[in-house]
Amino acid sequence: MNFVMGKEILLENLSIVSKAVSSRSTMPILECVLISAEDQVRLTGNNLEMGIETAGMDADITEQGSVALEAKIFLEIIRKMPGDTVSFQSDANHLTKLKSGRAEFKILGLPGDEFPVLPKVPKELGYTVSASIFKDMIRQTIFSVALEESKPVLTGELLHIKDGIMHLVSVDGFRISYRCEQQETLMESDAQNVVVPAVSLNELARVLPAAGANEKDEMRFYFTDKHILFETNQYTLVSRLLEGEFIRYNQIFNEDFTTLVSVERAQLLQSLERASLIARENRKSPVKLSIEQDSIVITSSTELGASYDEVSAEIDGVTLEIAFNPRYLIEALKAIDEERVLITFTGALSPCIIKSKENENFKYLILPLRLKS
Amino acid sequence: MNFVMGKEILLENLSIVSKAVSSRSTMPILECVLISAEDQVRLTGNNLEMGIETAGMDADITEQGSVALEAKIFLEIIRKMPGDTVSFQSDANHLTKLKSGRAEFKILGLPGDEFPVLPKVPKELGYTVSASIFKDMIRQTIFSVALEESKPVLTGELLHIKDGIMHLVSVDGFRISYRCEQQETLMESDAQNVVVPAVSLNELARVLPAAGANEKDEMRFYFTDKHILFETNQYTLVSRLLEGEFIRYNQIFNEDFTTLVSVERAQLLQSLERASLIARENRKSPVKLSIEQDSIVITSSTELGASYDEVSAEIDGVTLEIAFNPRYLIEALKAIDEERVLITFTGALSPCIIKSKENENFKYLILPLRLKS
Repeated sequence: MNFVMGKEILLENLSIVSKAVSSRSTMPILECVLISAEDQVRLTGNNLEMGIETAGMDADITEQGSVALEAKIFLEIIRKMPGDTVSFQSDANHLTKLKSGRAEFKILGLPGDEFPVLPKVPKELGYTVSASIFKDMIRQTIFSVALEESKPVLTGELLHIKDGIMHLVSVDGFRISYRCEQQETLMESDAQNVVVPAVSLNELARVLPAAGANEKDEMRFYFTDKHILFETNQYTLVSRLLEGEFIRYNQIFNEDFTTLVSVERAQLLQSLERASLIARENRKSPVKLSIEQDSIVITSSTELGASYDEVSAEIDGVTLEIAFNPRYLIEALKAIDEERVLITFTGALSPCIIKSKENENFKYLILPLRLKS
Repeated sequence: MNFVMGKEILLENLSIVSKAVSSRSTMPILECVLISAEDQVRLTGNNLEMGIETAGMDADITEQGSVALEAKIFLEIIRKMPGDTVSFQSDANHLTKLKSGRAEFKILGLPGDEFPVLPKVPKELGYTVSASIFKDMIRQTIFSVALEESKPVLTGELLHIKDGIMHLVSVDGFRISYRCEQQETLMESDAQNVVVPAVSLNELARVLPAAGANEKDEMRFYFTDKHILFETNQYTLVSRLLEGEFIRYNQIFNEDFTTLVSVERAQLLQSLERASLIARENRKSPVKLSIEQDSIVITSSTELGASYDEVSAEIDGVTLEIAFNPRYLIEALKAIDEERVLITFTGALSPCIIKSKENENFKYLILPLRLKS
């Protein structure tokens, strides 16, 4: 294998595929990036849960071939190379020479054909959506994915597509985060349900362009029973899917309520953050919300001390005292972009629902804690 | 105790004194900040190695007194307070009420009179120097302080004052870092030698203003046999001194040489950083420098691979092959601000000396490694 390419474009692509490389594995090849030079140069990382491949980089290929190089040292070397271009030269024993300016490295690689190929996902039925919106939807829901493996399907997010709307939902047993978005490009698709591991969505969110970025704001995805493939112009991410039935979340969101609160999001968030300071050693200790005539009083009390906070709010319905794990409220309020939120309650032992004043794009359900009397 | 003061000035001062607070101690009072309100409000942190006290903050004191509050939670609370001012109120049981805007905390403190007082250092003979220059001198020498406790005096830096020049020196058995600066304000002082623990100098460097900062660029220091006191307009840092005789470093710097190299600092630094990538798993594995006619060739070789780098240089004297722990060269070159450096050698088994082309303000001595033949 023999080719020359620009250092910056190589570094950028290498950083992306490195996110799919195992940092420590019993199989050395899983700690590698595959470099293959055929019609073009491709870089691939694959930890068997998830793989990322990039292509479309300009390169001057004089001899085709492939080699797998240990990702960490490879990335460090390219980052520190002095020139504008890097030349690659691999011999039959996979000894690879990297040259740039007056610097030269020789590294022993592994055979490219021993690298695990990415699962095949046929690109027949595809869905096209806004990459930056999908990135936001991940950020706004992923924090309430279940961490324990007791119900593996809940360690992923449900991606549900129906009637031109995509929905992303996570559930961890104490709360539900729900986000949806209408996308014109989805109009003609059938109803679909897949559960994507949170680790893959996390990496996807990292490599997707933010809104207003210079790149084309478009992403496509395709799936089979076993795998989902996300594709932008620059790269492809393939993840396995989780099996099992996801919770029927929609039945849990109750539209009835006895107390309706409209409150400034940032004010409530800051008050909850203060109240949770007192619970420092044990983030689970409850904060109490007293929903009064025109304010929410937030109090907490632990062996460290006590806190008292007031937030003005518009309140309809009955007054109420209810307790929560403050982290659950904080994470939901942090995920929301809007200035004001609505919160509905149906009593001290029933979940609250946080939603938008403006639209139905998101809703968060959080179970209360039982107040000691 | 009862007073009100501005939140921002409190937060700034609290952040500074918190650096002298133990994060975990068997004595709870050492995890506290002392707040005392007498003629003015003072904040003090003291981990018994080092103490920091700040004063001079505007405050409206209505009842004098003192209390010690656990530093971490205190700092977090003040950081999150909603108002522009914070009011303090401590009762006889040290229960302290902190109020700001509509937020209120009650925290149980410890008695202020149980807080360890800072060692007394009489302010008779004092030295006035530039704070930003002293900050630079610490940064440029502290990295080669000995880490092991086998010779405790080497875990500090020698501060030597003579003939209007202050010198700061660190030695770790493999290298010496030396930095000096003439200060007109020191002209009339006697020769003095003290050894200041590196941990104290590190914290001092963090709180000293950088060059060009808005604060007054002046620092004073005073010492006794046991302690040194550094003072700026805003705060006081007291550190114990280290006992024992420091190495007579000056005799080790040999002015003779057989090879003189003048080289661009950044180029040599980058080449050494590349060469050390290959030594990743074991930063100690040597890089080899071949000093040739008009270039330095830098090579390294480990089980991970091999590297080759060339740097142009002006070279006088005999050619030479010599090996170093790359980290020692890298740290010295990183500490230097000038564009070009001079390096002198007197053979493959003798230390090299890195110094300035322009002045005598710094010199770094580094022992070579024995090359396997």
